[in-house]
Amino acid sequence: MTFAATVLTLYPEMFPGPLGVSLAGRSLARGDWSCNAVQLRDFAPDRHRTVDDTPAGGGAGMVLKADIMAAAVRHVADGRPILAMTPRGRPIAQARIRELAAGPGVIILCGRFEGFDERLFDAHPEIEQVSLADIVLSGGEPAALAILDACIRLVPGVMGAPDSGVEESFEDGLLEYPQYTRPFEWEGRTIPEVLRSGDHAKIAAWRKLRSEDDTRLRRPDLWERHRDVRDQPASGARHDTKEPDQ
Amino acid sequence: MTFAATVLTLYPEMFPGPLGVSLAGRSLARGDWSCNAVQLRDFAPDRHRTVDDTPAGGGAGMVLKADIMAAAVRHVADGRPILAMTPRGRPIAQARIRELAAGPGVIILCGRFEGFDERLFDAHPEIEQVSLADIVLSGGEPAALAILDACIRLVPGVMGAPDSGVEESFEDGLLEYPQYTRPFEWEGRTIPEVLRSGDHAKIAAWRKLRSEDDTRLRRPDLWERHRDVRDQPASGARHDTKEPDQ
Repeated sequence: MTFAATVLTLYPEMFPGPLGVSLAGRSLARGDWSCNAVQLRDFAPDRHRTVDDTPAGGGAGMVLKADIMAAAVRHVADGRPILAMTPRGRPIAQARIRELAAGPGVIILCGRFEGFDERLFDAHPEIEQVSLADIVLSGGEPAALAILDACIRLVPGVMGAPDSGVEESFEDGLLEYPQYTRPFEWEGRTIPEVLRSGDHAKIAAWRKLRSEDDTRLRRPDLWERHRDVRDQPASGARHDTKEPDQ
Repeated sequence: MTFAATVLTLYPEMFPGPLGVSLAGRSLARGDWSCNAVQLRDFAPDRHRTVDDTPAGGGAGMVLKADIMAAAVRHVADGRPILAMTPRGRPIAQARIRELAAGPGVIILCGRFEGFDERLFDAHPEIEQVSLADIVLSGGEPAALAILDACIRLVPGVMGAPDSGVEESFEDGLLEYPQYTRPFEWEGRTIPEVLRSGDHAKIAAWRKLRSEDDTRLRRPDLWERHRDVRDQPASGARHDTKEPDQ
């Protein structure tokens, strides 16, 4: 099955861009995924191909028109999840990336300027408003590229070693442990002895400890969530009070 | 003054990529910023141009060698901030983007595979370990593109209207208010009356309320930080107990 990516954008020439290179590029050439960039201006009815207008109530910038955006979304909608990139959205997380990568693909609507006319989302509550990070981009395109990159590496067949997707940052709610490689000594700094011990249990314990320590120190937000999850009963046990057939 | 971006990467062909188009592309052509992508393999001494090796202690994937990474960083270091893209890093925030954009430029080191030999950061504590989002990318390149995009739009001379950088998401720790534009009625949905009132004070109050409501609902994490900041004394007043000349 091919993972079908459709991007609605004012700059289709940005795609596949960096995703046409390296791992993603080779798997694109092989047909593991497809990339279709659609020009939003193609859905504007006037001869100037206008997609935006000034903000109601005043203010700087331009707002993407609900009617044009809706026409574009409706043209490509086929049951795949639809994401709209906007700083007003919920931050994307690795769990959602995993779900997307396991599905038939994704439609990504890229904002520009002062964003979308809000009525687009009132009329289409199935559109997920998604934010990449708490930084302001010139448009949704760089965010779409990052999200597609994260999805594509998990699409079946893309990654060389199916193992290497499992033990990594965020997958268990913790940062990954620090890594080392040859030479054993570099500019007076040596690889931690435990990693050369050959004692797999000891190595695993050391890595777990470092993973927890670094998360606590660098990402107190992740650490707090990790502790909350750990201290809860397993998710299957939460519905004990419900009727068995509900 | 030109904002000088240097990217250390295994895939220089990904740059400027999407940043060669649109606003960023036009300002690149004008010389408001420059983009220099440097091949990490150029710093490998062997004829196979090897940059990575297997992880000490075992495990899947490959680790980028400290000696090669350090050689590359030292070759381009000139006082500009140095960022290394890694999921183990601290999340990038708009405040840091603003600082970077106001400076002479940035050097970005892009990871791949299982990341960098940790001794690189022990030897070079000036390298900021930065993460874009809590998702796992195939490498640091898409993250570097997003961070550069966020910087470039703030570089003096790049953005058409100098106003439009001020009132937007994250700049005041809140999400931006929803936007609307013509037509007044679309598929039975109208623009909120207040935005057509012409009463600027009322419009500003409505927008502030919506901004706060949406932040509380969609981003409780941002809302909590916003309240903490608001409830603190101004930052200048915090050092009252220190010696005046310290």
